[in-house]
Amino acid sequence: MPKIVDHDKQRILVAEAAWRIIRRDGMEQASVRNIAEEAGISVGSMRHYFSTQSELLRYAMNLVSERVSNRIQQMSFTGSPLDNMKYLLLELLPNTDEKLAEMEVWYAFTARSKTDSTLKELADTVYDELRQAAGYVITHLIEHGLTRPDLDIKLEIERLYALVDGLGIHTVLRPDQMNAKLMDDVLNVHLASLCR
Amino acid sequence: MPKIVDHDKQRILVAEAAWRIIRRDGMEQASVRNIAEEAGISVGSMRHYFSTQSELLRYAMNLVSERVSNRIQQMSFTGSPLDNMKYLLLELLPNTDEKLAEMEVWYAFTARSKTDSTLKELADTVYDELRQAAGYVITHLIEHGLTRPDLDIKLEIERLYALVDGLGIHTVLRPDQMNAKLMDDVLNVHLASLCR
Repeated sequence: MPKIVDHDKQRILVAEAAWRIIRRDGMEQASVRNIAEEAGISVGSMRHYFSTQSELLRYAMNLVSERVSNRIQQMSFTGSPLDNMKYLLLELLPNTDEKLAEMEVWYAFTARSKTDSTLKELADTVYDELRQAAGYVITHLIEHGLTRPDLDIKLEIERLYALVDGLGIHTVLRPDQMNAKLMDDVLNVHLASLCR
Repeated sequence: MPKIVDHDKQRILVAEAAWRIIRRDGMEQASVRNIAEEAGISVGSMRHYFSTQSELLRYAMNLVSERVSNRIQQMSFTGSPLDNMKYLLLELLPNTDEKLAEMEVWYAFTARSKTDSTLKELADTVYDELRQAAGYVITHLIEHGLTRPDLDIKLEIERLYALVDGLGIHTVLRPDQMNAKLMDDVLNVHLASLCR
């Protein structure tokens, strides 16, 4: 069904145009008109792909989340339990240009999700998934007997999750101050402090 | 000089109207027209207070930062060094309705600062000040001989700063999940883990 494939491809191109507008000019400029122009298609033909701006933005936000999920699902864990968990956490951090671009867009979308009900549910779902990832790391380290005996699991999950998001947001806000090497070093300190 | 006082008061009222719009309707709705309407003044008389939307938003963003700074300057530290540092960190976290409202607005402003040069400098200044606060906490604990001997000061400052920002942002995004009690508990775990 080549027509459907083209339709999906075109939606992705439009979403990527939305990302570029959001990163370069800000969410305030992410109008259907501006995105159509960036994507090189007419405002009229945008209607074939998205019926409203909200639908377009939700699709563009979801596409970020899907790409992150796909990368995580393709990971193979072949190291020690501690190395594997560090590897998983690093995957969640913006330590490449591509991931930093995604996180910049994600940051703008989550800010908007505070007042845009179309985006809120997706933002909440991803929030929960990321906390699950932090929970997986903590419980995995505990199950392998690597951690100090007195850990409060619930608090350690929240602490790790807040640390990971804080590092990511600092890289988005101040890439001149926070970077891949420093995130890696901080993560090592944190994981070491959890372990015996 | 009552005229100047009134002028300043009016600017504050306009800034607070901008905050309400940003929190309720989003940054996308923070036009001069909408803010004037929210503040109950005419668009024409807005020109007496702010010559551009950028100037208005920068003033409104700066007012958030000033209120936080003022609160910190009014703190009195009368407890143990560890209690004092925890008290300082808690002041930076959105553990009251008022501070949560400020942080919601701040979050929207920092997201916009990525593509708005008028706001970027202020966002960067506050970023640096908050890291200085994290640095003060770490060095203060070290100077009082409270910490484990092997701390890497630079990494511990970044770790604490990222944790504090992560907790704050989680409260902004998911007040149903992260809250004052949980932030307090996580902070306690973190400070205890730094200390002997």
